[in-house]
Amino acid sequence: MRPSGRKLDEMRAVSVEVGFTKHAEGSALIKMGDTHVLCTATIEDRVPPFIKGSGLGWVTAEYGMLPRATNTRMRREAASGKQGGRTVEIQRLIGRSLRAGVDRVALGERQITVDCDVLQADGGTRCASITGGWIALRLAVNKLMKAGDVITDPLVDPVAAISCGIYAGQPVLDLDYPEDSEAGVDGNFIMTGSKKLIEVQMSAEGSTYSRDQMNQLMDLAEKGVSELVAVQKEVTA
Amino acid sequence: MRPSGRKLDEMRAVSVEVGFTKHAEGSALIKMGDTHVLCTATIEDRVPPFIKGSGLGWVTAEYGMLPRATNTRMRREAASGKQGGRTVEIQRLIGRSLRAGVDRVALGERQITVDCDVLQADGGTRCASITGGWIALRLAVNKLMKAGDVITDPLVDPVAAISCGIYAGQPVLDLDYPEDSEAGVDGNFIMTGSKKLIEVQMSAEGSTYSRDQMNQLMDLAEKGVSELVAVQKEVTA
Amino acid sequence: MRPSGRKLDEMRAVSVEVGFTKHAEGSALIKMGDTHVLCTATIEDRVPPFIKGSGLGWVTAEYGMLPRATNTRMRREAASGKQGGRTVEIQRLIGRSLRAGVDRVALGERQITVDCDVLQADGGTRCASITGGWIALRLAVNKLMKAGDVITDPLVDPVAAISCGIYAGQPVLDLDYPEDSEAGVDGNFIMTGSKKLIEVQMSAEGSTYSRDQMNQLMDLAEKGVSELVAVQKEVTA
Amino acid sequence: MRPSGRKLDEMRAVSVEVGFTKHAEGSALIKMGDTHVLCTATIEDRVPPFIKGSGLGWVTAEYGMLPRATNTRMRREAASGKQGGRTVEIQRLIGRSLRAGVDRVALGERQITVDCDVLQADGGTRCASITGGWIALRLAVNKLMKAGDVITDPLVDPVAAISCGIYAGQPVLDLDYPEDSEAGVDGNFIMTGSKKLIEVQMSAEGSTYSRDQMNQLMDLAEKGVSELVAVQKEVTA
Amino acid sequence: MRPSGRKLDEMRAVSVEVGFTKHAEGSALIKMGDTHVLCTATIEDRVPPFIKGSGLGWVTAEYGMLPRATNTRMRREAASGKQGGRTVEIQRLIGRSLRAGVDRVALGERQITVDCDVLQADGGTRCASITGGWIALRLAVNKLMKAGDVITDPLVDPVAAISCGIYAGQPVLDLDYPEDSEAGVDGNFIMTGSKKLIEVQMSAEGSTYSRDQMNQLMDLAEKGVSELVAVQKEVTA
Amino acid sequence: MRPSGRKLDEMRAVSVEVGFTKHAEGSALIKMGDTHVLCTATIEDRVPPFIKGSGLGWVTAEYGMLPRATNTRMRREAASGKQGGRTVEIQRLIGRSLRAGVDRVALGERQITVDCDVLQADGGTRCASITGGWIALRLAVNKLMKAGDVITDPLVDPVAAISCGIYAGQPVLDLDYPEDSEAGVDGNFIMTGSKKLIEVQMSAEGSTYSRDQMNQLMDLAEKGVSELVAVQKEVTA
Repeated sequence: MRPSGRKLDEMRAVSVEVGFTKHAEGSALIKMGDTHVLCTATIEDRVPPFIKGSGLGWVTAEYGMLPRATNTRMRREAASGKQGGRTVEIQRLIGRSLRAGVDRVALGERQITVDCDVLQADGGTRCASITGGWIALRLAVNKLMKAGDVITDPLVDPVAAISCGIYAGQPVLDLDYPEDSEAGVDGNFIMTGSKKLIEVQMSAEGSTYSRDQMNQLMDLAEKGVSELVAVQKEVTA
Repeated sequence: MRPSGRKLDEMRAVSVEVGFTKHAEGSALIKMGDTHVLCTATIEDRVPPFIKGSGLGWVTAEYGMLPRATNTRMRREAASGKQGGRTVEIQRLIGRSLRAGVDRVALGERQITVDCDVLQADGGTRCASITGGWIALRLAVNKLMKAGDVITDPLVDPVAAISCGIYAGQPVLDLDYPEDSEAGVDGNFIMTGSKKLIEVQMSAEGSTYSRDQMNQLMDLAEKGVSELVAVQKEVTA
Repeated sequence: MRPSGRKLDEMRAVSVEVGFTKHAEGSALIKMGDTHVLCTATIEDRVPPFIKGSGLGWVTAEYGMLPRATNTRMRREAASGKQGGRTVEIQRLIGRSLRAGVDRVALGERQITVDCDVLQADGGTRCASITGGWIALRLAVNKLMKAGDVITDPLVDPVAAISCGIYAGQPVLDLDYPEDSEAGVDGNFIMTGSKKLIEVQMSAEGSTYSRDQMNQLMDLAEKGVSELVAVQKEVTA
Repeated sequence: MRPSGRKLDEMRAVSVEVGFTKHAEGSALIKMGDTHVLCTATIEDRVPPFIKGSGLGWVTAEYGMLPRATNTRMRREAASGKQGGRTVEIQRLIGRSLRAGVDRVALGERQITVDCDVLQADGGTRCASITGGWIALRLAVNKLMKAGDVITDPLVDPVAAISCGIYAGQPVLDLDYPEDSEAGVDGNFIMTGSKKLIEVQMSAEGSTYSRDQMNQLMDLAEKGVSELVAVQKEVTA
Repeated sequence: MRPSGRKLDEMRAVSVEVGFTKHAEGSALIKMGDTHVLCTATIEDRVPPFIKGSGLGWVTAEYGMLPRATNTRMRREAASGKQGGRTVEIQRLIGRSLRAGVDRVALGERQITVDCDVLQADGGTRCASITGGWIALRLAVNKLMKAGDVITDPLVDPVAAISCGIYAGQPVLDLDYPEDSEAGVDGNFIMTGSKKLIEVQMSAEGSTYSRDQMNQLMDLAEKGVSELVAVQKEVTA
Repeated sequence: MRPSGRKLDEMRAVSVEVGFTKHAEGSALIKMGDTHVLCTATIEDRVPPFIKGSGLGWVTAEYGMLPRATNTRMRREAASGKQGGRTVEIQRLIGRSLRAGVDRVALGERQITVDCDVLQADGGTRCASITGGWIALRLAVNKLMKAGDVITDPLVDPVAAISCGIYAGQPVLDLDYPEDSEAGVDGNFIMTGSKKLIEVQMSAEGSTYSRDQMNQLMDLAEKGVSELVAVQKEVTA
């Protein structure tokens, strides 16, 4: 039995409010249950030095969490003078994942920065950031296309992410915080709308898992991503 | 004529959503027109070293702005490795202002940290932070009193803040960003519900002002703060 | 009764030694009683990026305090790896204040950096820095004019600053440290020689004040600034 | 055809020099082809604050690369003032992986820090660090057991890691740098001697992969880890 | 011929103003020609962790230079976020040198921090800091002895320092900046009043020197230190 | 009697493995007894800004120590966010010393960075770094000459370094760690193959020394450097 009463393969309620903030070229507040992440996409004409003049575009991401997004207040990273290891890991993952769905030639030599800021956390913030970040990216690219700055759609296959894990001996979909903090094994599965894999990270803390278990979680993840991609399409239609 | 069409002494529409996030002891999303600030209050049993054992409480504040809260994306402070001078100034001001309304003996030896994070900016973020921060503080203290942890109400007089300035030669109330960026003179006025002054900061950039002008802005500010205090009372009733 | 025996509207003895160091284009050691600040002005041909090519000049300031300028030794900011919030606030105030007296077109596209380093502190260091900083700036600009690099005097109205506060229930001029550490309300008043206001910062810590009190302090400040501007003129004549 | 002429499922030559440095409780220089990593294990009686008094032990890791371990010199992280995102990710992975093979109750309340410093890099440094780090850990724990400080062996199942990827359309084992820099998909597989999975990280940069491909790489990884565990046993026998 | 017209073995004019600032337990402004260093000594009852409980005292030093102490303005170290390599080297040298003249048992378990801040630089700032730092230390220790907190004088032999170098092929005493910037070889000689050596640092930049030359500079240094120790005694008598 | 049983003027066994790593233009692992330092030389076509366009070359050095190179583990400098004062001092010394043997005109406008990383420490790491660093530099320059990029050999006189000190009242050559930690006086002597002096640093901690003692150590150092230069020649022949 899951603490939330959900079925093993049941995701939390998902809702998305697009255009949550007005300045960004794309913005969305995604809620996966009590995990709320504000995602914004910013278009800039400059690209990082290593691709200057290549004609290729770039998509990158930054991640943050408000100090009291969590149950007890965490120290503000800006005040402590650096981003923690967890933050760095997550924002690299978000950027890498989003880029997998992007045709960088079609995007042209410009950069889109996706900021994912967690307003409230209840497990699964990195997956919500990827799923919501894609929505913000989609909205921003729509603007570029509407303005004629980009002709061929550079977003070739939608990207979404979901966590799965082994909780109380059972494979479960979309861990919330109470599950996440007790699961010995959990994974993040990032896929495209056509079920291609982008990144799988499955790790055990103080435990191990079998290939069978891995395959069970993969099955759950495919189900979850399908549902998320449907939401993405609906809210950006 | 103001860009927004407002009258000289007309504040932007104010709305407050209390309980915007669930973990904090007090939380509120305050909107002053297009300026949106999420304020949370966190109660902790420890106090800063300099008052340990004194029996006195402490109220402090931190301030941040999401990178794309503004028209062009600003660098994330956590990524650049330090809080900018403007951020430091603002969070010191918020803390000082809120403390002026607090009876630290009645609060008892505990600390309340008020985090003010700007989700969307359109001028006047520090004033919105103070006004909204007081609401979060009020909600958190209500919990302490309900639980019997605090007997006498330590919040002796509500604190609110508003900016005024001289725009196109006219004194105006509650500058939005288009006004703020052109005003040669502007000020922040922090007062209590009983019209006592806590802090006045009035500065000219590449300009000066007279005592008469200062008095005109003070009059406007008193009007604005009265209205804000009414809102504070209504949403925390 | 003031600890120093001064009258309510009596400033501390002011003395200025111009040319205290030889390398800077302008330098002055200003003493306001036991508060001693070494101010130097450095002229450079470059300007900050945001005004490059505009033809406008820039005046900026930095502030520091020697570790043992105070009664107990403070940690050296260079050793602790960053400037504290108080330092950042003060140097931004100094720069903003000095710029209010400068015609940046007449200055031409060059930058003058005013360094204010407190050798000994006894209250009022930010005001002494502004008043002394203006003297260093005046001396540096004199050199530019003598050399024919600048034709029209860019220093249009001298800038000086003084603190006032409410001590033992009485409005007093030019707080020294013993007064400053006990005053519930104090303010810094930055004005020009022609009594125009540049910046007023009046704040209460754990207290409040009325508009009447504010006006009394303004009256005192006008008296103080007049005397300081007279000193500035005398030593730079 | 692989650049090195190796077969698709052929690992690079592995050699280990145990006791490479004399001060550490355990040390080993592991060479996987031209990737050379010096691993040392340090035993300390203190544990991190979050497990103080729990009776549990802790294993953690740090990772570094000498500036000229690579083909072009990289900036020294100590000189640039922080560890890069890649470094942070890797050392967290090493620590997590090693802990999966450790019975922290049997270890007792002490910490073992495994330092992995890359002297020469040619792809696969994180996997070499985990495999070599386990050897250093094994040697250090042997000392504890010999001294009677630890009774039950806390190292319950050896941990090793290998990378696999899709190179020129083919699944290959143990990518070297020329392969790694061209592979669109690669993964790191961390397993125990009994083929239990600890962590799988499989990611595509600007590409995607199928579940079939994932399974092919898993098969290769199992073969590689078996060989590595055999080496670990041999050199620590 | 030296640029200053001084003889080869002639030191610059030395003057010392003791008690230059009022808060420090000992303070002195030392001028060696146009090199002016403000030295203060601060007594604290705490000692560094590594000698806590040992009964031994500690003397340490910090060094800084005002941004415009030099001919062109240098970046303020507090603003750049760290002390430069040169600063670190110098302050370690000052501390080590002063400690050589101190009986740490007689001092008792307390720490004296000597701050040396260069107000104006014209070569030889580290030597002036040592010589002036000893004076501040002497004055501070005198207070301890007068108060009966220390019985046996812990300052066993005065410490002073002078630079010598080879300028235009000639060994010269007490290099000023024009000499220093052209000398291929220069050294700093730190000795006690009884001509015992504490530290010799003699280095060539893009050049070398012989043992004969080294001995000539040693002779000059002994002369210089004798004169400096005489000044130290006179001003602290 | 020395702890190692060596004679007073006996150096530790020296061995050098050239080409220890494959990427660097020059590399050598130097062992002086149990002190092992990996030195690599990297050639780059860019030079520091201050000599751009001058036609002159530059040689610089960086120094590091692996965390467990020492008897107890030291904190990793990259993790603590800055290089310690000792590290900064040492790497400046290495760079300065090596440059003294280089004809920067003959080198041409390129930079060679010598990285010295201590794998195992037992005293004398800075001297081993200089001696071994020269070897790496020699190997790198050989490549430049072989390729015809440099015509005249820019390495005019080999540079080597050795420490000497007063241990148990006796002057001894090449202090190991047990001696170094007890010697009241020690020095580092950097010389060329033709016995010219580059840098002498002789310091006493809590002690002093006489000119006679200084001369005895100089004699020992000359002997040691002769032997080291012979090794350098042999391994780079």
